[in-house]
Parts: sequence; structure tokens; C-alpha cells
Amino acid sequence: MIKDHYIFSTGRLQRKDNTLYFVDAEGNKKSLPIEQTENVHIFGQVDVNSTLFNLLAQYGIRLHFYNYYGYFTGTFCPRAQNVSGYTVVQQSAHYLNREKRLYLARSFLYGGIHHMLRNLRRHKEKTEEMVQTIEAEAAKLEEVGEIPEVMGVEGRIRQEYYQAFNVILKPEFSFEKRTKRPPADPLNALISFGNSRMYTEILSEIYKTMLDPTVSFLHEPSNKRFSLSLDLAEIFKPLLVDTIIASLTNNRAITLKHFDEMEGIVFLNDEGRKKFLTEWEKKLGTTVQHRTLKRKVSYRYLIRLECYKLIKHFIGDTIYKPLKAWW
Amino acid sequence: MIKDHYIFSTGRLQRKDNTLYFVDAEGNKKSLPIEQTENVHIFGQVDVNSTLFNLLAQYGIRLHFYNYYGYFTGTFCPRAQNVSGYTVVQQSAHYLNREKRLYLARSFLYGGIHHMLRNLRRHKEKTEEMVQTIEAEAAKLEEVGEIPEVMGVEGRIRQEYYQAFNVILKPEFSFEKRTKRPPADPLNALISFGNSRMYTEILSEIYKTMLDPTVSFLHEPSNKRFSLSLDLAEIFKPLLVDTIIASLTNNRAITLKHFDEMEGIVFLNDEGRKKFLTEWEKKLGTTVQHRTLKRKVSYRYLIRLECYKLIKHFIGDTIYKPLKAWW
Repeated sequence: MIKDHYIFSTGRLQRKDNTLYFVDAEGNKKSLPIEQTENVHIFGQVDVNSTLFNLLAQYGIRLHFYNYYGYFTGTFCPRAQNVSGYTVVQQSAHYLNREKRLYLARSFLYGGIHHMLRNLRRHKEKTEEMVQTIEAEAAKLEEVGEIPEVMGVEGRIRQEYYQAFNVILKPEFSFEKRTKRPPADPLNALISFGNSRMYTEILSEIYKTMLDPTVSFLHEPSNKRFSLSLDLAEIFKPLLVDTIIASLTNNRAITLKHFDEMEGIVFLNDEGRKKFLTEWEKKLGTTVQHRTLKRKVSYRYLIRLECYKLIKHFIGDTIYKPLKAWW
Repeated sequence: MIKDHYIFSTGRLQRKDNTLYFVDAEGNKKSLPIEQTENVHIFGQVDVNSTLFNLLAQYGIRLHFYNYYGYFTGTFCPRAQNVSGYTVVQQSAHYLNREKRLYLARSFLYGGIHHMLRNLRRHKEKTEEMVQTIEAEAAKLEEVGEIPEVMGVEGRIRQEYYQAFNVILKPEFSFEKRTKRPPADPLNALISFGNSRMYTEILSEIYKTMLDPTVSFLHEPSNKRFSLSLDLAEIFKPLLVDTIIASLTNNRAITLKHFDEMEGIVFLNDEGRKKFLTEWEKKLGTTVQHRTLKRKVSYRYLIRLECYKLIKHFIGDTIYKPLKAWW
């Protein structure tokens, strides 16, 4: 099975012939199965030699680097493989046409709302009122005709949804509101860490297709950001990030001791990150029976399928319908 | 001045506080001015630590890796830097609109034709008839209304232009016609080598801007190719590649001994490539006084300026006019 690898220790990533090894500071050697690896995430202080990059390029493996606080800083990308000017112009045409753009912006939100409500309905007795408020807001989506209004609906829905976290999660993880720069409390730190992992995960899948990650619909295409990843994250954040947060905190796998604070920034510490990422990999590798493909597909592959559905939509093959978990 | 750095030795690239150092196998230390660096090209066997990537990301520096044969394998890209979904959609809009696309397709050709005629006029007595034929073809460009017709005009002009090579160049480099796959004779081998160097050179400059290299106008955007590079090459091939070929062969710096043949493929040998690339670097570094910038700019920078002019055109700032050498 294809999977991502994470390196937290200090050590050296090296090749021996055509095999990839990580050797830690104590000299312990661990081999990474090169043919089953697509991404390596480096959180620790790791030495690499340029010859290794050539091996990685050969196998199309990407190396992602994270700084001290666990924030993503950059990626080693093998030479352009999946590029298509044809797809890019068709994708752009769907941004340039107001109706086409609105259709996609709404679709991403419908997918996201479906998954938010799915999370809340698991705690029916406590969240009934919030579910109703969100449903009422969602009904307005068909009426609004401009992207900023769509974003407005999205903002109000998300605010209501995050309020529900206070009744769903344990009291120690209660929060007043979503704060991003910087996260002000443990729950915000968890959401930020999870969402940031979500964006890179989606970006990795986008890169395996011919989509242009900068041309987006709900989020305005802008400079220096891969906003298509943000668009698709609307669908997947409640399905993946939020369910992982709920399960890790409710099972006390992650508690307050997994957070540090420095200069007003609350962040998940090393131990906490490991717990989160282990759960993340487990979740992304979990499979569900796909209704039309008639076979089991992993959550990770569901992201890729969403990209393929977009390409089919752009080239006029099949109209895009967002993923709505049916299981 | 912002410049690229090349590392050919074995050694280690490291940070000390906020400075970048290269230490070679003998322990010689060389500092790279981090604020004046955009790209580091690694040809040697170089050790790097992940903390260095975080520093590079902070300064938006890209690290390019090349394998043993000198072929490009991949790049470390700081988190989204020169990407702009905004520019991509505006660029695509100029492809999607027939008139806008035609304007650009014609513009690239006008630039190219200007430089072809400039080359031919240096041998006025021998090329007068060809110049007239090309001018007559060029006049048709305003009348044709479809891209394939524009390409037709381009094809006829280039055929006429290449015929002129037989009267301009030494007899040993005469050829019947342009053959690409594979080049059938030394002149074709030279043109192929030069054009291919031209495409990568332009692609490097495109990457320093926010342009999408796959969205093109004269050439149809397609899969797995950077066709904007082909578009811009129309302007620069006669200005750079063809003048270098003429000067190298007429001065006998490159003669028939610089070519090998294998299974019907004629190609420039190692010695020949070195001669060509030395001349190439010299030419690309040559400066001319820029009329509106009021300062000296290198031929390489003229390529970058062409990209900037395209961006201004796409975002509706200034209408694009192709470079036409005035010196």
C-alpha cells in the first residue's frame, strides 16, 4: 500500500543503491520501501545528500519540510510530470464564467456542509438547534449570486459549527472562537495543525493530476497560494480533520500535556504531533466501499477521485458532484 | 545584483545563523549572499540539512538538482512563491478569446520575423529575393483569422529563411531542409541543439515570474509540454541561436569535426557542445542599452522582460509589443 512517511528524529536520510534508509543519531537504521512511498515529511533535523534527490526524482517521491513549529516550509518536487496547458485553460474558463464559478463554489460548500451536519448529528440531543441554524443558512446558498455572499454564508455556517465543538468535545478543549494567527488555545492549535496537514495532503493529490492548484473557485485565485487546495478542503476538513480531533481528544489520546506555549503561540508538541499524524495516516488509509467504482477505496484516494471528477467537469465530460459520505 | 549560483564540487551547503555557506571537501568555505540569491544549481554531490531548507524557504530561494549526466531532476520550492492563480486565469482568458489569442500569436511572429530579416539583411546582396518573399508572407498575417493559418504563414516564412542559410553559411554547413527527428546533418544538429537550449533558457526565466509556462497562444496548449516557452522562442531563436550558429561556423570555431553520427542521428559532440555553450553564456550575458529602462540589460534579462510585458498585458496594464532589436 502506498503511504506517507514521517521523520521526527535527528538523523540522515540516505540511499544505498536503490533503497532509501533513515539512520538516526544513535545509528539505528530503518528502510523505507521506495516503491510504496509517495511523500516523506521531515519534521526533525535531517541530513540529505543531493544524490538522494536524484533517486527520489526517479521514483516521483516528494520531500516536504516543516519548521520548528511544525509549519510547512517547502517541498522537493521531481521535474514536471503532470502538466497540461489544455486542462489549465479549461479550468480557468470555469473561473472566468460567473455562473460556472458559482456552481463549483456552492458544490464545495454543499460537500462540506453535508460532512459538518454528519458530525453534529452524532450528538443529536446536544446539537439539534445548531443543525437547524446551519440548514437554514445552507438553504440561502441557492439564492446568493456573488462569491462574497457565498463566502458570507460559509463564514456563518462555520461559526455555528465551531460553537458546537464546545458541547461535543471535553471541557478542557472548549474555546471561545476560531483563532488562526496565532492559535490562542489547544483546540485552535489542533484545528490549525490538522487543517494545514489537510491542505498539503490535498495538494499532494492535486499534483498527481493535471489540475492547476492555483486556479480556484470558492476562494479567489491569488498570489502565492494553492487555493484549489483550500476549495477542496471545505469538503474534507469536517470529514477528516474534525473527526480525528474529536476521537483523539474524547479518547484522551491527546490531552493538554500535548501542547506547548511560546510567546502567545499555542502549538502541538512533538508527542502530540506524533499522536495526531499516526491517527491521520490510519484514517487516510481506511477504506470504504465505493458505490460506482464497486471496490474499496481509501480516504486518501477519495481526495484524488475528487480531482479527477473536477477534470471531467472542466473538459465537459461529466458534471461535478461533490463527495457526500454515504457510509 | 541577483544571480544564480552553481555548485560543481563535493561538499556541504549549510547555514550559520542567517548566512548560507558552501564548504567543499577540503574545508574551504565560501559564503553565498543570501539576499542576492534566487537559485542555487547543484551539480556536485552536496550534503544539506533540513534546517537549511527552512532558511531557503524564508528567503524564497530555490535549489535545483542535476544528476550525474547534468540533467535536471528536481527542485526544492519554498511554499508557494511565484505562483499566482490570478495571473493564470487572466493568461488563460487571452487564450480562450479568439481575437486576443490571435493578437499574441501574431505578435510573437512579428518579433521573430523582425529578427530573421535582421539576420538576412546583413548579407543584403545574397538575400534580397528571400527578404522580399518573407515580407510578402508577413503581410498576410493581418488577413488570416485562424491559428492554423497563422502557423501556415510561419511555416512558409521559416522555410524561406532556412533556405537563406545555404547562401550565408559556409558550404560545408549547407542543408536541404530542416529535419528534426533526427537531425540529418551538422547544420540541423546545431539548430536542434541551440533551439533546445533556447527553450530551457526561456523556461527558466518564465519560472522566475508568475506566468504559467503551459498556457500558450501561437502553439496549442497541450499535455506534458511548456508551450509558452515555444511561443517566446519564436522571437529569440533568430536573435540568439541563429546568430551564434553563424558566428561559430563562419569563424571556424565549430567545424565538421565537432559532429558525430550514430545510427543516422547527427549530433554535436562533447567538444562541440562546450564551444556552443561557452558562446551561449557569453552572448546571454552581453548587455545592450535599454531605451525605456535607460540602463544596460543582458540578453538573458531581455527574455525576463518579455515575460513581464506579457503579465502586464494579461492583467490589462500595458498592451504587449514584442521585442524588436533596435541596436
